[in-house]
Amino acid sequence: MIINKRKIRIEWGDCDPAGIVYFPRYFVFFDDATGALFEAAGFRKRALMKTYEFVGIPSVDVHAKFYIPSAYGEDVEIESSIAKWGRSSFEVHHRLLKDAKLAVEGFEKRVWVGPHPDKPGGMQARAIPAEVIQRFKKG
Amino acid sequence: MIINKRKIRIEWGDCDPAGIVYFPRYFVFFDDATGALFEAAGFRKRALMKTYEFVGIPSVDVHAKFYIPSAYGEDVEIESSIAKWGRSSFEVHHRLLKDAKLAVEGFEKRVWVGPHPDKPGGMQARAIPAEVIQRFKKG
Amino acid sequence: MIINKRKIRIEWGDCDPAGIVYFPRYFVFFDDATGALFEAAGFRKRALMKTYEFVGIPSVDVHAKFYIPSAYGEDVEIESSIAKWGRSSFEVHHRLLKDAKLAVEGFEKRVWVGPHPDKPGGMQARAIPAEVIQRFKKG
Amino acid sequence: MIINKRKIRIEWGDCDPAGIVYFPRYFVFFDDATGALFEAAGFRKRALMKTYEFVGIPSVDVHAKFYIPSAYGEDVEIESSIAKWGRSSFEVHHRLLKDAKLAVEGFEKRVWVGPHPDKPGGMQARAIPAEVIQRFKKG
Repeated sequence: MIINKRKIRIEWGDCDPAGIVYFPRYFVFFDDATGALFEAAGFRKRALMKTYEFVGIPSVDVHAKFYIPSAYGEDVEIESSIAKWGRSSFEVHHRLLKDAKLAVEGFEKRVWVGPHPDKPGGMQARAIPAEVIQRFKKG
Repeated sequence: MIINKRKIRIEWGDCDPAGIVYFPRYFVFFDDATGALFEAAGFRKRALMKTYEFVGIPSVDVHAKFYIPSAYGEDVEIESSIAKWGRSSFEVHHRLLKDAKLAVEGFEKRVWVGPHPDKPGGMQARAIPAEVIQRFKKG
Repeated sequence: MIINKRKIRIEWGDCDPAGIVYFPRYFVFFDDATGALFEAAGFRKRALMKTYEFVGIPSVDVHAKFYIPSAYGEDVEIESSIAKWGRSSFEVHHRLLKDAKLAVEGFEKRVWVGPHPDKPGGMQARAIPAEVIQRFKKG
Repeated sequence: MIINKRKIRIEWGDCDPAGIVYFPRYFVFFDDATGALFEAAGFRKRALMKTYEFVGIPSVDVHAKFYIPSAYGEDVEIESSIAKWGRSSFEVHHRLLKDAKLAVEGFEKRVWVGPHPDKPGGMQARAIPAEVIQRFKKG
């Protein structure tokens, strides 16, 4: 199974007046980390768009738990992996570590989406290509 | 029970290349809506800081479900209320409506936090003042 | 001449660890204010796209001067107007006022852009429709 | 003279419905790049706060020119340097390059600020320490 690790420096603009990361920023970190996870598996979103009838992987359900705050100038690491594969959806699990301790946990349920066959500009859930799933499982 | 309603115009910068709201932005909308809910109940955060040994209400657990996307230029409404009161924590429920349909649902578990008695600059969970809870319940 | 006024509440997530607005946020405020200015003149961006061969009004040059910081919970007002019209470009001037004092000044040079005739998905500067300019000047 | 180079991947959340970087994001890139420039010179903001009576380097005047747009998934590089030193202010120049071409140029005038001697929590411009300027000039 592919687990992608990614270091992040907490920047000034990530933080709020309490001096810690403004929590919606974690969802940005996680969204970027999901992109990096797919890239680590050999799938860049832009390439997926060319290979498959692929539009994107929008989130339909996201969840985060905050255990330890992080402050300006600190370095953290995000470990990302696919926790579960469905037919047209999958779940990403992100573990944000600070000094090797679990600081934030994130969960994203995402849907594999292609162009809608009838509505121009619309989107429709599609079956995830088997080779995509295989690549992640073999690592 | 106080339910606060708040209209939001979806702005250009709220949206991503798919033309719809970039999902971390919803957590910003909800965070702002929680502040507006407290203000509707008569409690501005800045005033709370003066009245009580109050530092803030950081989120420890947040969750969102996305049912209908919203696009640039659309108007939506958020209905916010406190779903549950604990001793030092509480849960906020946000319902984002588009054309009277539930488009996004958000849940925030937040903790009532005051200054830490021993660590300068630190924070510690505190019992939520009874009059705060009463005010929300009576509406 | 149309001058559009718009009130803004400074939110928690707009501010940095110094407790004041994180300066890139002002450009978001100004971008939104430009949209509101056009709407006040009767032109919603989405409607413009239908009426004209219009794609958008991207900024090519922006500038801001910060005189007085604003903090979480404060209310400010932005006054926006078109300072200058060119053939295919124009300049927007934003004055952000706090307690009736000029706190931030913003300048945006924007280009009226339509679809590129040869490159699919591309953009090209276009002459600004005369009726658009007239509407702003008459107010 | 120290010139710091920094690679940036354009992320999904950096882009707007036109598929290109939402321009206020460039000011975030530049703000982060200024922090990285100081760190490359051996000065981390947090360390500066301990060594000197230093609060920060707020921007008082910023300016950007946009020549070439950048889209989701593209890699760009920012070259940052101090263009000018004053007594208590200095100017940072950022050159954002895409495929070795100048895509965006940014200018920040910043002030070296310490705690205000009379107003608690207030700030006051201070003379920039000579060794800070020397370090940047020697490189």
